[in-house]
Amino acid sequence: MNMVYIGIDVGGTSIKIGVVDEKGCILAQDATDTKVGRPFADIIHDMGTCALKVLAQSGYTLADVHSVGVGVPGIANQDTGNVLFCTNLHWQNVPLRAALQKYLAKPVWIDNDATVAGYAESICGVSEGTHSSVFMTLGTGVGGGIVINGKPWSGFHGVGSEIGHIPMDIDGVPCTCGNRGCLERYCSATAIIRMGRESLPTHPESGLYAACGGDASAINAKMVFDCAKNGDAVSLEIFHRYVKYMCLAIDTIICFLDPEIIILGGGVSKAGSFLLDAIRAELPRYLLLKELPYARIEIARLGADAGIIGAAMLGRANTEEA
Amino acid sequence: MNMVYIGIDVGGTSIKIGVVDEKGCILAQDATDTKVGRPFADIIHDMGTCALKVLAQSGYTLADVHSVGVGVPGIANQDTGNVLFCTNLHWQNVPLRAALQKYLAKPVWIDNDATVAGYAESICGVSEGTHSSVFMTLGTGVGGGIVINGKPWSGFHGVGSEIGHIPMDIDGVPCTCGNRGCLERYCSATAIIRMGRESLPTHPESGLYAACGGDASAINAKMVFDCAKNGDAVSLEIFHRYVKYMCLAIDTIICFLDPEIIILGGGVSKAGSFLLDAIRAELPRYLLLKELPYARIEIARLGADAGIIGAAMLGRANTEEA
Repeated sequence: MNMVYIGIDVGGTSIKIGVVDEKGCILAQDATDTKVGRPFADIIHDMGTCALKVLAQSGYTLADVHSVGVGVPGIANQDTGNVLFCTNLHWQNVPLRAALQKYLAKPVWIDNDATVAGYAESICGVSEGTHSSVFMTLGTGVGGGIVINGKPWSGFHGVGSEIGHIPMDIDGVPCTCGNRGCLERYCSATAIIRMGRESLPTHPESGLYAACGGDASAINAKMVFDCAKNGDAVSLEIFHRYVKYMCLAIDTIICFLDPEIIILGGGVSKAGSFLLDAIRAELPRYLLLKELPYARIEIARLGADAGIIGAAMLGRANTEEA
Repeated sequence: MNMVYIGIDVGGTSIKIGVVDEKGCILAQDATDTKVGRPFADIIHDMGTCALKVLAQSGYTLADVHSVGVGVPGIANQDTGNVLFCTNLHWQNVPLRAALQKYLAKPVWIDNDATVAGYAESICGVSEGTHSSVFMTLGTGVGGGIVINGKPWSGFHGVGSEIGHIPMDIDGVPCTCGNRGCLERYCSATAIIRMGRESLPTHPESGLYAACGGDASAINAKMVFDCAKNGDAVSLEIFHRYVKYMCLAIDTIICFLDPEIIILGGGVSKAGSFLLDAIRAELPRYLLLKELPYARIEIARLGADAGIIGAAMLGRANTEEA
């Protein structure tokens, strides 16, 4: 009988848990509410209990489990198994591995959620079988997941692939991190919303103004893109500015790492070919070596399952020979 | 008897050639003038002849040579052995491997000169034995050399580690490549010279003005730094602006790849601890995760020999098991 892997995707709202086979197929899954703010031990209790329930549903037992993987919206120390930062969950230096092993006495691997999602795509998604890939999650912020030679790359100190905070504009837009001009100030859903809101006072005639009823707080990224699709000039201008920023971000990835493939995931990527076609059309003018082949740009394929699959497969990444 | 390696460092002025042992020690070396503009075959003739001469000087014969490596200021196709671009030498898609093998019937490996220099540092220089490193050559432009798990990384398509052309400022300073805001417009010796020249009209009282006699064309990067060291306020302001740009560039490398070590090489790095201390002091305020360990910043150790050593060792990198 083959071994199975437990993958845990920790989010600010819910914790999704799945039992995954060696090819990355989810055999059973469930979720439990995170309920941010309650004691760490209570969250781990629900996490461990839910994992055992999903395992039973899958028809496997703990003896069949190779390892447990956890994707967190933060930074973990791979040696100690502690989560160093997890801002959304108010976690700081919590012993996630040790606590979880009280419920699941197995090897526990922990990595950043975007790294894990990018890794999942390289196992059974759009970047399957590639030499190297960089995954971008375009959501409230921008996360990054690097896979090199089939393994997730989190850097030497575990602080890598934080592409949302690459400085992209000297003295640019202030970022929540305290710096200015961070990439996620230009390439996130938040950036699209900001540009949309900024347009309202000067463009009461725009389709976007009509769509949100003049209420800046009602604007979301999908609304801006939908208005752009419908030909609203103001929204189209924002869309093209966003595409330009995305091309600069992708150019950074190509100039630096030159991966085989760059994958767009997260909420903004749901715009699909509308966004992808525009980026593919505009990107060449920003490239240094326009005549040479460069990374394919693709939309992520696994959607919300990527978190469970990638986390589950961490045990595979960490036990296979380099 | 151990095998030896021939390393060839192709520059716009001279071609440096060495015979190198398995530990990266140069056993014999010589150079021949590049004389840019003459036929490709003539350059290769001098290159091959000089290599055979150096080999004889070393006391070894062709039978002892494991392989030949060439570092070029450009981009090579690793499969065909052709150099695709080498702007300074006016080379475009030249069959370097095939041509050189007429003189040296051995495996020939070719890579970018900054990549090769960074690799040399990881073999027997300041980054020896590290898990991962990024080398920055701070010269007329800015080159990059990435080493991952002990091997030089040039990307999937061979267009990676071009860190000089990472976009660093949206709509910023125009670059020779046709884009705007490229990193090398802020972090090269050329950038220091530009800032120095720009200061002259408004600061005839400055120490820099006195040092160059008011002649903008006489300014070089060392002059600006020397004036800064001597306390010239205008030069110090330029120096601190340069340090800020370098911190942003280093922060990009840390956010993205998080290597174990980042190495400063090239002409500007000769400023030594004056530059290094300022960068180390300023860098933390730009980092996302200020409480966590991050890459050591160091000055390159091998100097001009890095090109020969790294090129020679390419054969070792490409034949060892991954």
